[in-house]
Amino acid sequence: MEISGMNFHGQQIIGDTLSADSEEIFQGIKPKTAQSLPGDFHEATNDEIDRAVTLAAESFDEFRKKSNAEKAAFLEAIADETLAFGDALLNRASAETGHPLERCAAERSRSVNQARLFAEMVREGSWVDARIDHAEPDRQPLPKPDIRSMLLPIGPVGVFGASNFPIAISVLGADTISAFAAGCPVVIKAHPAHPGTCEAAAQIIVNAIKKCRLPAGIFSLVHGRTVRVGTELVKHPALAAAAFTGSLKGGRALFDVANSRPVPIPFYAEMGSVNPIFVLPEALEQRSAEIAAGFITSLTTGVGQFCTNPGLVLGMGDSQGWENFRSTSAQLAAEYDPQTMLHCGIHYAFEEGVKELQHMGGLMLASRSTRDPIEQKSEAACYLFETDSEGLHHHPALFDEVFGPVSTLVKCGDPGDLETFANQMDGSLTASIHGTEQDLKNHSGLVSILEKKAGRLIFNGYPVGLEVCDSIHHGGPYPATCHSYFTSIGTRCINRFVRPVCYQSWPQSALPPELQDGNPSGVMRIVDGERTRN
Amino acid sequence: MEISGMNFHGQQIIGDTLSADSEEIFQGIKPKTAQSLPGDFHEATNDEIDRAVTLAAESFDEFRKKSNAEKAAFLEAIADETLAFGDALLNRASAETGHPLERCAAERSRSVNQARLFAEMVREGSWVDARIDHAEPDRQPLPKPDIRSMLLPIGPVGVFGASNFPIAISVLGADTISAFAAGCPVVIKAHPAHPGTCEAAAQIIVNAIKKCRLPAGIFSLVHGRTVRVGTELVKHPALAAAAFTGSLKGGRALFDVANSRPVPIPFYAEMGSVNPIFVLPEALEQRSAEIAAGFITSLTTGVGQFCTNPGLVLGMGDSQGWENFRSTSAQLAAEYDPQTMLHCGIHYAFEEGVKELQHMGGLMLASRSTRDPIEQKSEAACYLFETDSEGLHHHPALFDEVFGPVSTLVKCGDPGDLETFANQMDGSLTASIHGTEQDLKNHSGLVSILEKKAGRLIFNGYPVGLEVCDSIHHGGPYPATCHSYFTSIGTRCINRFVRPVCYQSWPQSALPPELQDGNPSGVMRIVDGERTRN
Repeated sequence: MEISGMNFHGQQIIGDTLSADSEEIFQGIKPKTAQSLPGDFHEATNDEIDRAVTLAAESFDEFRKKSNAEKAAFLEAIADETLAFGDALLNRASAETGHPLERCAAERSRSVNQARLFAEMVREGSWVDARIDHAEPDRQPLPKPDIRSMLLPIGPVGVFGASNFPIAISVLGADTISAFAAGCPVVIKAHPAHPGTCEAAAQIIVNAIKKCRLPAGIFSLVHGRTVRVGTELVKHPALAAAAFTGSLKGGRALFDVANSRPVPIPFYAEMGSVNPIFVLPEALEQRSAEIAAGFITSLTTGVGQFCTNPGLVLGMGDSQGWENFRSTSAQLAAEYDPQTMLHCGIHYAFEEGVKELQHMGGLMLASRSTRDPIEQKSEAACYLFETDSEGLHHHPALFDEVFGPVSTLVKCGDPGDLETFANQMDGSLTASIHGTEQDLKNHSGLVSILEKKAGRLIFNGYPVGLEVCDSIHHGGPYPATCHSYFTSIGTRCINRFVRPVCYQSWPQSALPPELQDGNPSGVMRIVDGERTRN
Repeated sequence: MEISGMNFHGQQIIGDTLSADSEEIFQGIKPKTAQSLPGDFHEATNDEIDRAVTLAAESFDEFRKKSNAEKAAFLEAIADETLAFGDALLNRASAETGHPLERCAAERSRSVNQARLFAEMVREGSWVDARIDHAEPDRQPLPKPDIRSMLLPIGPVGVFGASNFPIAISVLGADTISAFAAGCPVVIKAHPAHPGTCEAAAQIIVNAIKKCRLPAGIFSLVHGRTVRVGTELVKHPALAAAAFTGSLKGGRALFDVANSRPVPIPFYAEMGSVNPIFVLPEALEQRSAEIAAGFITSLTTGVGQFCTNPGLVLGMGDSQGWENFRSTSAQLAAEYDPQTMLHCGIHYAFEEGVKELQHMGGLMLASRSTRDPIEQKSEAACYLFETDSEGLHHHPALFDEVFGPVSTLVKCGDPGDLETFANQMDGSLTASIHGTEQDLKNHSGLVSILEKKAGRLIFNGYPVGLEVCDSIHHGGPYPATCHSYFTSIGTRCINRFVRPVCYQSWPQSALPPELQDGNPSGVMRIVDGERTRN
């Protein structure tokens, strides 16, 4: 127990009660040693899942009607309680994921800042997109009624956190925070690879709920290693939406469950992607070694376990610049010291993915970490493969993501190859271009294609690392996500958990403040076609 | 041919070519006589559908890069060409649907005004939700990059118009106009119940495209009476989204097709609903006859063929007010002169739906049009049924929509019945409340439930009739629509056809105007957290 400085009850947290109806238990595993960590976590029963969602639905009205100030204070309380909880959270997250403590601390900072950013947004209030069209009783041929609308929360939200961000994209992640910001109760399916971190983070939220005297039912956490638990959650009639970060396979399966319900609900899955990097001629000529260094850092940070990990690099191969880029990348990959992956399942999938690449004709291993990875520690070496545009065309599998520090360099024969590839690639969270402004002009066709394929276009930068802000977009066409309008990071992600509600000829006294004539909240609105705070 | 003043070629319109590969043909039918109208319409082949969507995809880049002024001019050209086309459009629409000419003229006005409203929005430009977070190169522990984002069009959109609005919610409807406003090419599946109106409307759009020298491929129209044509369209790999207005059965089937694609696409279906009216005690006391008159008008306008048709009226039955409401409604229903429905399929479904209601125990016929409807003219009588809250509980089928002039009055024993019903009802496009402000306060629980169930809440008004404006919401929880965030009417409906694209560290010279520092378009943006035009 000393490893984390806290005891784990391992039960479902259903509002303000604990529950462990099932005797089926599992433990958190320390990937570095493959040993069990303290705490027996109970698989949630269907009845427990039902109680959690039912309680969420029952507490919805009280919660959604809290003022903006009260909701903002709650989000700030989550930030404060996260810091007040101390290092037990970081210790357990580090133990369960193999992430160094500094990484866990960085994730905590991100969660804290994110909660505060949403608190600001909720307090300011304009995000509700309030709109007013005044009545025109004398209009011909028909009078025009008074019409007003704004975004309201949709109801209980199910959240499936990611294994790779045990703090920042899990219980304390943007899904939970944006659902709360919208006014939606949350039921979390704890990630079975970091159940202890989930319990600690859940305790933080419970503390914040108590501090703010909010209904306990707005938050529950259920555990489960089986597909059943997630499926039951998504199928629950009282659930209004679900958010997921994880694999394509898992995401698509739950997406299908959500859509085949008698009453379908939106299932927002962020499922990763290939995140290509295009290196254009002038950039290759001017700074190939620098780009190689940045690329390998982006590829290996966090043992390559990022949704935005760059899985392909394409460049014009008929230049000294490409050779430099290739050789520097290969050297840095060789120098990479193998590291422990998140859990043995991910490690296994990585090894299998690499094996498949090794057996592909037309694909050659360009480099590999010199030191052998230690199997028992679930360590991953860095792998670099190489091919040419011909090879890429023959191997559509190269367009699929292999999660971990492996990437393929594609030496292209002419600029048309870059466009051909871009046209063929699946939807992606990101696409990066290295070049000069002149390169960008010379390859405007490539940019035009990438604007249709990726959620975020990066110039002279690397895909890994994500600002949490108003303008970020962490989404993209399928399979990056299931719905490209929505993002899972940044303030826009609140749109996943709201819907417009329109009030026609409604009395002032019964309207939400944002829609009242006097605009007591002072929000930006569209009034008779004008954007104004008046 | 003289009926409409135009000849119909009956072919697919694929960009600037006509095509009639299949010899399978069908005609428009005049519902009043069940006779065929001029024009042989060719069922589209899979190859024709493929060509239409492929052409749409090929023309996408050129179209989406047009300036806001050019896109606005195109929408205005559609409005102008609609008026310039003359009455042939109205004549054919009236013949194919049985709608009186004045109704068709009103639809045309709505289409024209709608195109102009979207033109204004596009010219102003703030709808793209531009956001900028400036770089902070000195930030610790990591520098912050420059991040900007805005909404961009998603690609070719498939449109399935409604049978009940041959002009305003068909080829010239909000789906087409909002897709064009976003910068998306459109492929329309013509409604087989008004194929001639679709051809005429398509000609109007082709005229506008020519006038504005836009790529012909941004618009195609394919015909079909079979499920295959719509299914092939939705399954086409190059389609990015589809919009539909019609029945729950048809909408759900295509929704399932869209979601089971290898690459799922959003399918935005507006599928109608029950649209309950709640009449509260003080309103019943003060103006029961007036409400009855408004209700019957709303129920019978357009032969009850509206998505927002009121299928249930609930009120407190222990009052003289309810008795007055009931008897006045019954009298007006009896006076309703049966009218021709849109087509024999809808007429048949109406008759079947009414038959089912007639055989439900606990449900009584309160009134029916005195004059018998003429079967051969596909006429519908107005039917009013009545039951009490007990009857409602035993017949969940009452929660299902029967399309046409039929409604059920529910006499409730106590205020709790209203809430119980509201809690049990499915998602609905609208819910209406008649009452005083005091009634509304006394029934705040009811309002709170309806806010979670309906897209539009109407006070002392009736659901039929819809303002096309910024603040309208024509959507709602399933089965009203497949995704409650989106609307199919009003300027917000452009959100269905766009997605955010984020530019990180992107050079000014390569950014869209809306994201450039100087804000040359003058749009409202969120810049470093502030909403501003600076």
